[in-house]
Amino acid sequence: MNTRKIILSEKEMPTKWYNITADMPNPPQPVLHPGTKQPVGPQDLAPLFPMALIEQEVSTQKFIDIPEEILNHLTLWRPSPVFRAYNLEKALGTKSHIYYKYEGGSPAGSHKPNTAIAQAYYNKKEGVKRLSTETGAGQWGSSLALAGTLFGLEVKVYMVKVSYEQKPYRRALMETWGASVVASPSKDTNAGRKILEADPNSNGSLGIAISEAVEDAVGREDTKYALGSVLNHVLLHQTIIGEEALKQMAIAGEYPDVVVASHGGGSNFAGLAFPFLREKIHGKKVRVVAVEPAACPTLTRGQYTYDFGDTVGLTPLVKMYTLGHDFMPAGIHAGGLRYHGASALVSQLVHEGLIEATAVKQNDVFASAITFARSEGILPAPESSHAIHQAVLEAKQADEEGKSRVILFNLSGHGHFDLTAFTQYLAGQMKDSSISDADLKKGLATIPVV
Amino acid sequence: MNTRKIILSEKEMPTKWYNITADMPNPPQPVLHPGTKQPVGPQDLAPLFPMALIEQEVSTQKFIDIPEEILNHLTLWRPSPVFRAYNLEKALGTKSHIYYKYEGGSPAGSHKPNTAIAQAYYNKKEGVKRLSTETGAGQWGSSLALAGTLFGLEVKVYMVKVSYEQKPYRRALMETWGASVVASPSKDTNAGRKILEADPNSNGSLGIAISEAVEDAVGREDTKYALGSVLNHVLLHQTIIGEEALKQMAIAGEYPDVVVASHGGGSNFAGLAFPFLREKIHGKKVRVVAVEPAACPTLTRGQYTYDFGDTVGLTPLVKMYTLGHDFMPAGIHAGGLRYHGASALVSQLVHEGLIEATAVKQNDVFASAITFARSEGILPAPESSHAIHQAVLEAKQADEEGKSRVILFNLSGHGHFDLTAFTQYLAGQMKDSSISDADLKKGLATIPVV
Repeated sequence: MNTRKIILSEKEMPTKWYNITADMPNPPQPVLHPGTKQPVGPQDLAPLFPMALIEQEVSTQKFIDIPEEILNHLTLWRPSPVFRAYNLEKALGTKSHIYYKYEGGSPAGSHKPNTAIAQAYYNKKEGVKRLSTETGAGQWGSSLALAGTLFGLEVKVYMVKVSYEQKPYRRALMETWGASVVASPSKDTNAGRKILEADPNSNGSLGIAISEAVEDAVGREDTKYALGSVLNHVLLHQTIIGEEALKQMAIAGEYPDVVVASHGGGSNFAGLAFPFLREKIHGKKVRVVAVEPAACPTLTRGQYTYDFGDTVGLTPLVKMYTLGHDFMPAGIHAGGLRYHGASALVSQLVHEGLIEATAVKQNDVFASAITFARSEGILPAPESSHAIHQAVLEAKQADEEGKSRVILFNLSGHGHFDLTAFTQYLAGQMKDSSISDADLKKGLATIPVV
Repeated sequence: MNTRKIILSEKEMPTKWYNITADMPNPPQPVLHPGTKQPVGPQDLAPLFPMALIEQEVSTQKFIDIPEEILNHLTLWRPSPVFRAYNLEKALGTKSHIYYKYEGGSPAGSHKPNTAIAQAYYNKKEGVKRLSTETGAGQWGSSLALAGTLFGLEVKVYMVKVSYEQKPYRRALMETWGASVVASPSKDTNAGRKILEADPNSNGSLGIAISEAVEDAVGREDTKYALGSVLNHVLLHQTIIGEEALKQMAIAGEYPDVVVASHGGGSNFAGLAFPFLREKIHGKKVRVVAVEPAACPTLTRGQYTYDFGDTVGLTPLVKMYTLGHDFMPAGIHAGGLRYHGASALVSQLVHEGLIEATAVKQNDVFASAITFARSEGILPAPESSHAIHQAVLEAKQADEEGKSRVILFNLSGHGHFDLTAFTQYLAGQMKDSSISDADLKKGLATIPVV
C-alpha cells in the first residue's frame, strides 16, 4: 500500500508558533498612525485588540508557546494531513511529486480557525465579551463564529455583499454557531452608510467591511475587533500549518523544491510558507510562490508603499503591496482573495526577493480545480484552487524541462460552500476578469502620500 | 492536555470487513423473487450487481478481506477519529462520558463513500462502464459520484425530488464529480412517468428513486445498479467504522454501555453497531440503539414481514420492518431517513431483541444538533443529529437515575449541505411531523401478502 496520507499524532503537534520577524534580513517596517503618520504604539491598538495579541504583533521572539487550551481546541481537526497527490500526478502525467497540506478538515472547512481560536482565547482571557469582524468568502466569519461559540463570546460579522448573496449557506453556518451577520456595506455603521450613499449597489469589498468592523469595535466598550488575515499575530497563529508540514515532509523523505499557496491577505500563504522560509533564509534551497487572482493582482501589479488597510481610511498605514485602498476588485468567486493590500510581512519578503508572486485567471483556476476534484476526490475552495493551479503549472513546466520537482501546496479549504461557482463553471458561464489598465491606474491613484 | 481525539494510524486500519450473518442466532431470511415468490439466486441478481458483490451478499464467512486498492482510496479520510465530547458533556452538565465516531471527514461529507468505493472497485473489476443509483439527501449520490470519478465509471443519479429542491449544492457536488443527476420521479423511466401521471407534484421518495435506478440498470447492458444502504454487502462495507471504533474505545480505556446510530436504510447504523453486536452476541454487556424519525418510524411502528424494497414493486421481496412500500413520508430534512423499509439484517436483529429502536421528532433533533454544534464545533447532518439527540437523552436519563453511562454514537456526516434546514429551525419555522394513524394504516395496507 502506497502511503498517500502523512499524519502526525497529537503528541507530535507543534507547541510553538514561528515568528518570522526574528529571522528577516531587515527589521519589519513600522505601522503608522493614520492621523500623525508616526509609528503606532500599543496604546493606539488597545481599543481594537487585547494586550496579548498586541504583544505578539510586535514581538521579535522567534518562537512563541501555544497555550494548552488553544492546542486542546485545535485537536478537533489538527494535526492536519499532508497528502501525496498520486492521482493528480497520474491525471497530469507528470514526473513531479505533488504534495498538499489539507486544512479543510476544520469544522469551518478552512485554515482560518487556527487563528480564530487563538484570538478568541486571548480576548476571553482579558475579559472581552463581544468580537466584531469582517468576512469575504465567509471562511473567516464562520471561523470566528465557531471560536466565539467555543469560548462563549458574542460575534458580529460584516460580510462582503457579493459573498453574502453568493454564499447564503456560509452565512447560515455563522448563524447556526450563534453569530450575527449583516451584508457589508451595511446601514449599521457610518462607514457603511457613506459607501451606500455613493453607490447603493456596491458589491462590497474586504476593505469596506474592515472599516465597518473596526468602527463597531471602537464604538463599544465590551467589543474588540478580530482580523482573519494580514496582521503579524494572525500570520503567526497560522505557522502551525508549516511547522506540521516540515515534520510531515521529513516523514515522506522528501523536501519541496517549491512551496505554493494562494494569497489574499496572506494568512494561509504565510501559514505554510514561513517555516520553509526560515529554512530558506538559513541556506536551504526552496522556492516559495504566492498565487493571486488576475482580477486582484496585489503582489504582482501593486505598489510597495504605505496605504490604509481598509477602504475608508480608519486603520493604521501599513507598508505593503497595494492596489490602492479604494480599488474595487471584480466579483470573482474567490472572495477571500479580493483584497487591495497584503500583509506587511509577506510584502516585505516579496520586496526582498525571498518570495515569488504570480497571478492567474479564474477559468484556468477552475479547470485545475475540476481536475483535482475528479482525481484526488476532495472538492477544493476557489481560493485554494489558485494554489492547485500553480502546482499544476509547476509540474508541467518541470516536465517541459525534463525535470521532476517536489511540489508542496496548501489546500487551505474545501469547496462545499462554493458549489454555485462550480455549477457556473461547468455551464461555461464563468467570467474571466483581469484588472484593466484603467482600473489599475485609478486604484493606485488613491494611495496616500506619506 | 485531555486527549479528546482518538486516532489510529493507517497501519492500524482494519483490513477485514465483519459479516454479522456468521454470528446471528438465526440464519438470515431468504430474499424472494417478486414474481415467483421463491428465494432468489445469484442469476436473478446478476443484471443488477457484479458477481463479487452478489457473493458478499450471501456470504456466511465471518471476516472478508478488504482489497488493497480499496484500502488505498479509503485512506483519503480513514481511519476516522473518535472524539470524546467533553464540551457537549459540559453543556449538558452530565456525568456520562459521551464519545462519537466522526465520518464527516470524507470528501462527500459522510460515511457513504466507505461502500461507494468498494462497489465501484468491484464493478470496475468486472468490466462495468456505468452505474445507476438513487439518492435521498444526496449523500449517497455524491459518494457514488466520487467513487465513479476515482475509478473512471459513469454515474447516473436519481435524486428524491424534495432533496433535489432543498439541496441544490449537493446536486452540484455530484455534477462537479462528473455524475448526471435528475429529480425523481423523472421522465427518464417508466416507473417515474407512472408516478408523475398519478401525482405531478410528488415529493418523491427513496422507494420511487430505487425503482427508477433499477429500471435504468436492467435496461442497459453497460450499466449496473448501486445501492447505498439496506443490502447485506453495503452494511458489510460499513463495518470498518465499528471495527475502528472498537480499537479506539480500547485506547480510550472505556467500553460503551450504549451504542447509538441513526437509522434510515441501516448502513451507518450497522457500520458502527455490528462489530459491537458481535461482542454482545458473545456475552459482552452493551445496549445497541437505532434512532429513526417520528415521521418515518419503520422499526418502531412498521410490520416485520415481506415487502418490496422499492415503491413500484420491481425489487425482490425482503423480510424486514416496513411501513408499506407505498408509504410516503413527510418531507423532513433528514432525507436519508425517509425510507419505508429497513435492511433485512437490522430488521431481524431488532426482531430478535438484540437491537433497540426508538423514534424522535424533528424539532427535538435540531435542538440537540444546535447544542452539539455550539459546544463541539462540528455542524452535524440532520440524519446524524438523530443519533446526537438520542445520545443526549441517554445521558439525561442516566443523570436522572444517578448513574454515569459511557455512550458512543455515530456522527455519520457533517451538515454543510443542510444549512437551509438550520436556517429554518433557527427562524422557528420547522414543522414537527409525526406519522398519523391514518397514514400508518394506509401504508401498511400496501404490504403484499406472501
